[in-house]
Amino acid sequence: MNQLISSGYNIYFDNTLSSLETFLAENSYSKIFIVTDENTGEHCLPLLQKKLPKLDHFDIIEIPHGEENKNIDFCIGIWKMLLDFEADRNALVINLGGGVVTDMGSFAASTYKRGIDFLQIPTTLLSQVDASVGGKTGIDIDNVKNIIGTFSQPKAVIICNEFLDTLPDRQVTSGFAEVIKHGIIADKKYYEEIIKLSSPKDITIEQIQHSIEIKNKVVLEDPFEKGLRKILNFGHTIGHAVESWSLENDNTPLTHGEAIAIGMITEAYISNKIDMLSDDNLNTIKSDILKFFPKYNLRSDIYDTLLEVMQHDKKNISGKINFSLPDEIGNCKFNIVVDQQLIKDSLDFYRSL
Amino acid sequence: MNQLISSGYNIYFDNTLSSLETFLAENSYSKIFIVTDENTGEHCLPLLQKKLPKLDHFDIIEIPHGEENKNIDFCIGIWKMLLDFEADRNALVINLGGGVVTDMGSFAASTYKRGIDFLQIPTTLLSQVDASVGGKTGIDIDNVKNIIGTFSQPKAVIICNEFLDTLPDRQVTSGFAEVIKHGIIADKKYYEEIIKLSSPKDITIEQIQHSIEIKNKVVLEDPFEKGLRKILNFGHTIGHAVESWSLENDNTPLTHGEAIAIGMITEAYISNKIDMLSDDNLNTIKSDILKFFPKYNLRSDIYDTLLEVMQHDKKNISGKINFSLPDEIGNCKFNIVVDQQLIKDSLDFYRSL
Repeated sequence: MNQLISSGYNIYFDNTLSSLETFLAENSYSKIFIVTDENTGEHCLPLLQKKLPKLDHFDIIEIPHGEENKNIDFCIGIWKMLLDFEADRNALVINLGGGVVTDMGSFAASTYKRGIDFLQIPTTLLSQVDASVGGKTGIDIDNVKNIIGTFSQPKAVIICNEFLDTLPDRQVTSGFAEVIKHGIIADKKYYEEIIKLSSPKDITIEQIQHSIEIKNKVVLEDPFEKGLRKILNFGHTIGHAVESWSLENDNTPLTHGEAIAIGMITEAYISNKIDMLSDDNLNTIKSDILKFFPKYNLRSDIYDTLLEVMQHDKKNISGKINFSLPDEIGNCKFNIVVDQQLIKDSLDFYRSL
Repeated sequence: MNQLISSGYNIYFDNTLSSLETFLAENSYSKIFIVTDENTGEHCLPLLQKKLPKLDHFDIIEIPHGEENKNIDFCIGIWKMLLDFEADRNALVINLGGGVVTDMGSFAASTYKRGIDFLQIPTTLLSQVDASVGGKTGIDIDNVKNIIGTFSQPKAVIICNEFLDTLPDRQVTSGFAEVIKHGIIADKKYYEEIIKLSSPKDITIEQIQHSIEIKNKVVLEDPFEKGLRKILNFGHTIGHAVESWSLENDNTPLTHGEAIAIGMITEAYISNKIDMLSDDNLNTIKSDILKFFPKYNLRSDIYDTLLEVMQHDKKNISGKINFSLPDEIGNCKFNIVVDQQLIKDSLDFYRSL
C-alpha cells in the first residue's frame, strides 16, 4: 500500500481498506458516523462493509445525491443528526462519497462543536483527485459554489479505486478533467501519458496517485491560497460560471468536469490571445479535451450572466476577474486580470469549434 | 491607551477609538461591513460615528436583538448580505454589539469565502470580558448554545467602556457574573476587590482589563480547550442548562449572567460536597452572588430536562457530565465527573436559599 503525506495527515492508496482498520484501532472514538448519499449508500457502503466486517457500530447520515443538495438545508440536517445521535467532541465522521459528501460532510464536521475529527473516503475520480488534499470544506448558497466553508484538514484520506467501478462512465470522465488539468498546469510528461488513455475508466491507481501528488505539492507550498495554489484554478473561472448556469437552467446539467473542460478550452484561448500560450499548445489542449468531452451547446445570450457570476467568484478581489493561465503545457501563471471582452471572445471561440 | 496581546492580535482599551482609526489606515480593505443589532445600531453606532467621523464608507448588517436570534436563519441572512453586497476576500466585518453579534458575526465572517477578516467591538460587559479572547465563534441550533462554530481569531478587539452607558442595569449585571467567575477561578484579591462594588456599573476600564487578562492567560496556555481552559467553564455546566430551559420557557428569560450565577452557586455546592471547597468559601460565594443576582424561582420538576441538556453539552464526552470546580476562591480544578444525584441535590440547595 502506498501512502502520501499531506498537511498533517496521510493519504492511503489502499484497495484493501486495511489502513482504515488500523486507524480505527489506533483511535478510540466515542461514536462513528458515515455520511453517504443515496448512491454511495447503496453501492459503496456494502463494499466498505464487505472489506471491513469489523466496522459494525456506526450511524448512517444519508443525503440526497447531486450538487444542488450541497446547500445549507442539508448541512443543517447533518448537524441535527449529529446532535440527535449525541455526537460528542470525540466522535468521528467518515465521508463516503463524491464531492458533495466530502465537501459538505467535512464542513459540517469542522463546525460541529467547533470541529470534530473526520476521514475522507472519496468514491469518485473527481473527489479522489480534487478533494483529497487542500483542506477545503464547503457548501453552496444561492448556487454560488463553496461560498461558505472552512479550511480544515481530515485525519486521513483513503483512496480505493474499486469504488470507481460503481460509477457511470460520465462521472468518471468528470473527474478526468481535473486529471488533465494537473497535467497542463504542472507536468507535461504526465499530460501526454494520461491523454493517451482510450477511456478515463482505464486510469490506474498509480496515475490517480500522481495526480494527487501534483496537487499536494502545490497545496503544501501555499496552504491558504495566497499565491501558487491559484494555478489549480485553471479552467475554473469560466468553468464554475458555466457550471452554475447549467445547474440552474439545464434539464440535464453539466457535470463539474464537463464545465471545467469548457473552462480549460476557453481559458487556453485567452492565454493564447495575450501571447502566453503558443498556437500549437492551444490546438493540442483543445483537440485532446474534445476527445473526452463532447461539445456543449453554449448559448451566446448568457455571456453577461456568466460574467456576473465570475465577478462573484470568491477568488476575485474588487470585482476584477482573475485568471490562472498556462504559458505552456506543464506550467501555469496566476493573478492575470483579463478584460470582459476577451472573456466573451473566448466563449465565441468555444462556440465556433 | 492600554493594550494586551492575545493569540496573534491586540486588544485595545481605548475610549477614543483611535486604535480603530489606525487599524483601518494601516489595512486597505475593499469593503467594510458593520454588524449590529437593533439596539447597538441605534445607540452604539452613532457613538462610533461621532468618535470616528472619517469612517464614512460602510454597509450595515442589522440583526434582531436577543439570544433567540443567534441561529442559522440569521446567519444565512448575514452570508447573503455579504454576497449581495459583493464582499470579496479582502472585505472586513466589524462586529459592534453584544455576544449575539460578536459570536454570530464572527462565525459568519470566519466561514464566508472560507474566512475573511473581522474586528470585535463588544458593547456589553459580558461580551467584553467573555468574547474578547478565545477565538470562539458560534451559533445555536434548537436552542443548544454554540453547538455550531469555529475557532477563529479576530484581527483586533477594541474595548470602549462608554458603550456600557447605553445599557440597562440588568445587562451590565449579566456580564458581572463572568467578572465574579474570573475572580473565583483565578484571583482571590481581584474577587475581593470587585465584590465590594456597590453596582456592576461602577466597574472601571482597568478592572475590565484585569478580567480579560485572567481569561487571556488561561486561553493562551490552552487555545483548543484540551485542559486548563476548561476552568472557564465553572458555573456554566448547570448555568447553560438553566439558561437554555429559561430561554424556551420563561416569558422574561434569564440573562446569561443570571443563569451563570445560579450555576456558580450550585457548582460551588457540589465542590463543597465532594470535599474540595470549604464551608466558609461556599458561604462567601453564595452570599456575594445573591447580593447582585436576585434568586430565581427554579422549578423542581425540570431537573431531568436540565440533566438531559447537560449531557448534550459539547464539552462532555460519552454522556458523562464534566465539571470545573473551585477548590478555594482563586483556584479551580477541571475534568471532575459528578453523578446525577449530586447535581439534583445542588439544585435543591439553590431552591432552599
